[in-house]
Amino acid sequence: MARVVVDVMLKSEILDPQGKAVHGALHRLGFTDVTDVRQGKRFELEVDGELTDDKLAKVEELAGSLLANPVIEDFTVTPA
Amino acid sequence: MARVVVDVMLKSEILDPQGKAVHGALHRLGFTDVTDVRQGKRFELEVDGELTDDKLAKVEELAGSLLANPVIEDFTVTPA
Repeated sequence: MARVVVDVMLKSEILDPQGKAVHGALHRLGFTDVTDVRQGKRFELEVDGELTDDKLAKVEELAGSLLANPVIEDFTVTPA
Repeated sequence: MARVVVDVMLKSEILDPQGKAVHGALHRLGFTDVTDVRQGKRFELEVDGELTDDKLAKVEELAGSLLANPVIEDFTVTPA
């Protein structure tokens, strides 16, 4: 069993309302050192058997088609 | 300017309906190598100036009070 982490974040040029909301809340709570917050999604995938290059390529493919919207999001695939 | 990543995942004993939904979709699309999927949140925080131990401790504190619900979620804080 192998684990792969897929991190999906909005592209930097896209407005992130959730991140802005968290940022505002942090300031109201006195955490003024934080100058910006961006929020995204994290997926932890368990893959059967050993993590071969072929399986990693498949995870990259599914990440780009199902887990992220390539128009507005960037994603990274990292074997954990 | 320093960047800190806060990853928030549901505790392993907590049912993850979003992860189950993604897992089901993967199988319908033919990605049968994936045996489990868990979905969480990823926050990227920009911190003013240098990342001192004091500031990192503050991020840990805000992560546990605002970004994660310690009752059902675990979180990790990683300087990026």
